Amino acid sequence: MLILTIDSSTKVGSVSLINDEKLIAEELLNLQLNHSPRLMPAVVDVLDKCDYDKDDLDGIAVTVGPGSFTGTRIGVAAAKSLAQSLEVPIVGISTLEVLAAGLKYVSGYICPMIDARRNRVFSALYQGAGAGDEFAAQTTESLLEIDDLLAELKEIEEEIYFVGQIVSEYQEQIEAEIEQPKFIEHSFNLPRAGVVGDLAWSRLTAGQEDELYALKPNYLKRSQAEIEWEAKNN
Amino acid sequence: MLILTIDSSTKVGSVSLINDEKLIAEELLNLQLNHSPRLMPAVVDVLDKCDYDKDDLDGIAVTVGPGSFTGTRIGVAAAKSLAQSLEVPIVGISTLEVLAAGLKYVSGYICPMIDARRNRVFSALYQGAGAGDEFAAQTTESLLEIDDLLAELKEIEEEIYFVGQIVSEYQEQIEAEIEQPKFIEHSFNLPRAGVVGDLAWSRLTAGQEDELYALKPNYLKRSQAEIEWEAKNN
Repeated sequence: MLILTIDSSTKVGSVSLINDEKLIAEELLNLQLNHSPRLMPAVVDVLDKCDYDKDDLDGIAVTVGPGSFTGTRIGVAAAKSLAQSLEVPIVGISTLEVLAAGLKYVSGYICPMIDARRNRVFSALYQGAGAGDEFAAQTTESLLEIDDLLAELKEIEEEIYFVGQIVSEYQEQIEAEIEQPKFIEHSFNLPRAGVVGDLAWSRLTAGQEDELYALKPNYLKRSQAEIEWEAKNN
Repeated sequence: MLILTIDSSTKVGSVSLINDEKLIAEELLNLQLNHSPRLMPAVVDVLDKCDYDKDDLDGIAVTVGPGSFTGTRIGVAAAKSLAQSLEVPIVGISTLEVLAAGLKYVSGYICPMIDARRNRVFSALYQGAGAGDEFAAQTTESLLEIDDLLAELKEIEEEIYFVGQIVSEYQEQIEAEIEQPKFIEHSFNLPRAGVVGDLAWSRLTAGQEDELYALKPNYLKRSQAEIEWEAKNN
């Protein structure tokens, strides 16, 4: 079973190929640039390098956000088009879960954060799989003011690993508020299509695919354009 | 400071670019094929995609094994040529350390394994950084029969995370011998040039570069060719 995975839901973009559970190719770019001219060439590139054709694909996985509106839309649209034209199953994966899963074997909690601008972040809390626990979400995904998120996390006495490129901007505030904050080296702060692959593999082989037409970006908030349109029209 | 990192010391090959501590590009191929036709094109490709030229590089990092003789030689030779021609510092990083560092935040021990054929592995034991410890090697790197390695690890009561593509081949034996073995999802079993970058960044910025002419592959054993030559000639 050959699975293509796509993540363009934040300023990082990556694609990977998973063949029978194994990651066989991954390309990642963290350039803070528009993904649209880069995504499909990267897909073609990993297929070419592995000597596969798009018709060899047996499934598609894509991150559905929360994250950048445009980036998420590009990734989900590309993935849905591929799944539809190739008639293969598709599965959507949370970008927050992908960030957290990169640290899934730690003991304690994992708090992935994605920039939502104006001192707000997309976030959720995950239990690490160390110390005999299961890696699992502990809260629903939310859009929160950083102050409100830290006020909630303040109650937790265990170690909390903060994950994501935006974390460095709030590091002083996190250190002031949280008892046992853990910060990590840079390469762990990026969502990776290979980790999307680990998650997608177990879901697609368990038949947990998404319904093609129902799969949508998970914005968690309305776009600025929608808010302005409503303000004007109400 | 722009650093190019190269790993071709096992059957996985990857390159990455690190700019001021941040991973900005990574390409990984896990095709069980010869690296020589793929390595330099991948280097050119990541530089191109990030709009850099080789003359922009400020440092080079390369994995020195232990691993495949040919793969390690190709990577180290390419890295040394680049460092010499561009007159930039170079640092060699252990492939076992890179594998272990992909799990560096776990609590307990990390046992990276690289195939050395004939039921032997290259291995070393690392302490994870969870539970307030420092991520650090606990043993020197060795070439061991799998039986001898497991006999040594048997004494350890804490959890041991086994890392590397070869682990799945010994999983039953590990489960039979080791009290608390931990196995991980596939994408964590590959050395990654981005993790080389995390390690290289802190060493190069601390001035811990290697001497260009002294930097060598770390084979940990003689090649089959050397052994046969000696057998014939003694």
